[in-house]
Amino acid sequence: MALNREVRLKSRPEGMPTAANFEIASVDLGAPGAGEVQVRNLFMSVDPYMRGRMYDRASYVPPFELGKALQGGAIGTVTVSNDPSLQVGDLVQSMFGWREAFNAPASALQKVETHGLPPQAFLGVAGMPGMTAYAGLLRVAALKEGDVVFVSAAAGAVGSVVCQIAKIKGHTVIGSAGGEEKTAFLKSIGVDHVIDYKAAKDLTAALMEAAPKGIDVYFDNVGGEHLNAALAVARPMGRFALCGMISGYNDLDACPGPSNIIQAVGKSLRLEGFIVSNHYDLLPAFLKDMSGWLASGQMKSTDTVDVGIEAAPGAFIKLFKGENLGKMLVKLS
Amino acid sequence: MALNREVRLKSRPEGMPTAANFEIASVDLGAPGAGEVQVRNLFMSVDPYMRGRMYDRASYVPPFELGKALQGGAIGTVTVSNDPSLQVGDLVQSMFGWREAFNAPASALQKVETHGLPPQAFLGVAGMPGMTAYAGLLRVAALKEGDVVFVSAAAGAVGSVVCQIAKIKGHTVIGSAGGEEKTAFLKSIGVDHVIDYKAAKDLTAALMEAAPKGIDVYFDNVGGEHLNAALAVARPMGRFALCGMISGYNDLDACPGPSNIIQAVGKSLRLEGFIVSNHYDLLPAFLKDMSGWLASGQMKSTDTVDVGIEAAPGAFIKLFKGENLGKMLVKLS
Repeated sequence: MALNREVRLKSRPEGMPTAANFEIASVDLGAPGAGEVQVRNLFMSVDPYMRGRMYDRASYVPPFELGKALQGGAIGTVTVSNDPSLQVGDLVQSMFGWREAFNAPASALQKVETHGLPPQAFLGVAGMPGMTAYAGLLRVAALKEGDVVFVSAAAGAVGSVVCQIAKIKGHTVIGSAGGEEKTAFLKSIGVDHVIDYKAAKDLTAALMEAAPKGIDVYFDNVGGEHLNAALAVARPMGRFALCGMISGYNDLDACPGPSNIIQAVGKSLRLEGFIVSNHYDLLPAFLKDMSGWLASGQMKSTDTVDVGIEAAPGAFIKLFKGENLGKMLVKLS
Repeated sequence: MALNREVRLKSRPEGMPTAANFEIASVDLGAPGAGEVQVRNLFMSVDPYMRGRMYDRASYVPPFELGKALQGGAIGTVTVSNDPSLQVGDLVQSMFGWREAFNAPASALQKVETHGLPPQAFLGVAGMPGMTAYAGLLRVAALKEGDVVFVSAAAGAVGSVVCQIAKIKGHTVIGSAGGEEKTAFLKSIGVDHVIDYKAAKDLTAALMEAAPKGIDVYFDNVGGEHLNAALAVARPMGRFALCGMISGYNDLDACPGPSNIIQAVGKSLRLEGFIVSNHYDLLPAFLKDMSGWLASGQMKSTDTVDVGIEAAPGAFIKLFKGENLGKMLVKLS
């Protein structure tokens, strides 16, 4: 008997998610069918975008279903194989997170060559969040020589990679995060000017002080007041990669938009939203660059790891309370 | 004695400009100096962007100075020439609007070849507003086959040209304007779906009805509620050319930004502000296309003309009350 514990969406959160929105269920997986494999997950990912899937509304990914296991990135080991393409012991990446183990068609899984990296790196710096940083900064924001780069949620899974790529490429980087631990972390990864947005009375003034000549690129993970500040301080022809706006994900009411969006006209700013799945043509270049940067020590991978499937809802909620440093993960075995 | 009457900025408007913010002064121009010419203006332009120059703040053009003549597009005839490059009778375009006549260096003026068009066309459909429409739609919004196009302030100087270019290129066009006269005008120039935003209870619902499959391009002249509606109804990969946001130009407080800007992330939207002066490399292509479209009758030029320099402040104020159809002009001689 192959027992699996999984996290299901019990009710749709209103505002900030709570433990009561989730339930943990035990299921017997049975044996994998023909062409299927059984996988035991090593790590699962919790990511801010998952909050959007908890609403019952159309979006670029369908909503999670009530009473069903949640989905998300995971990395695990094949324990039974009924398909010649995967062997027992192979490391595989999947969207079957939020569960300890699962059966799935081999074709739904991606075999991972670690290139010497720890498995969980493929959920973080060398996975979707890292790829998001890479595509957003280099393609969407079209980083070019001399750009001054501003990053919000700079100590998060995506933000911390954006900061480091920009530093590797020789740019001045301003990072915003909340609290002493995160600001110290940002200094440790080479961010030039660190803004503690929780301590700053006036975020626009703080950004102006950090970038007296203005910013050219803004990598937005936060929206809200950060987007306002970036519009105010942007130089002409500035480019904003809109990656996420976590400040509003739990808002029950429409959250206020940037009151100074008119700045985009006079300063010819480009604000471009993106989702990483539209940029996977960059994956080979990303993996080549990222493995090189990690090997040389120019890029550091930082994780916050909670342990056990029962910790998963709490780990997810931490994202919205800003309690993670770098990539938030749950270790499952 | 060469008498000139000119309009000066007497005080900076707070909110909606009023006649009291302007004064008309008479000056003796004297004779033009060496290398200078004297010009009598035929038409002057009033444009929404001038409102921004009435604030005392840094922007992409410097603020107007109190007690000095305002500036803006004008077209006139050379009456005295002290420079071999211009002859008496030549038609010239300049930024010396808001005055009946002026002396200026010949090098500051642009000689106009009319190609059979009336002189005032070079302040409208064949001038800056037309060029703004052309660059914004074709380059900034990167119009491509199959795009459904939404235009706000569609009956204005820029919007009416955007609508017509999109129709010439075979697109479905949705235009928003206020009141029966304007909506009838939009139908007369071939706009497929006309929204009277003053009559619509819910602009987003009205736009969804006009574009049940969504919009791909939004040409924003208005901001505010129109921008919200466009974000709500945009299809993935939509492109917004942010040309102006007249709804907020007179706001004393910061006006509400788009509360649904988060839509830009999930739908990978690009919002790009622009000012036409960065796109003058397109001028030869624009003049070739536009003169062809005007000659063939595919493009119609529509003006609202007030008469006499003393009418200029009122003509300017009309822009913000939506009382102009097409290009707002003041005939000076």
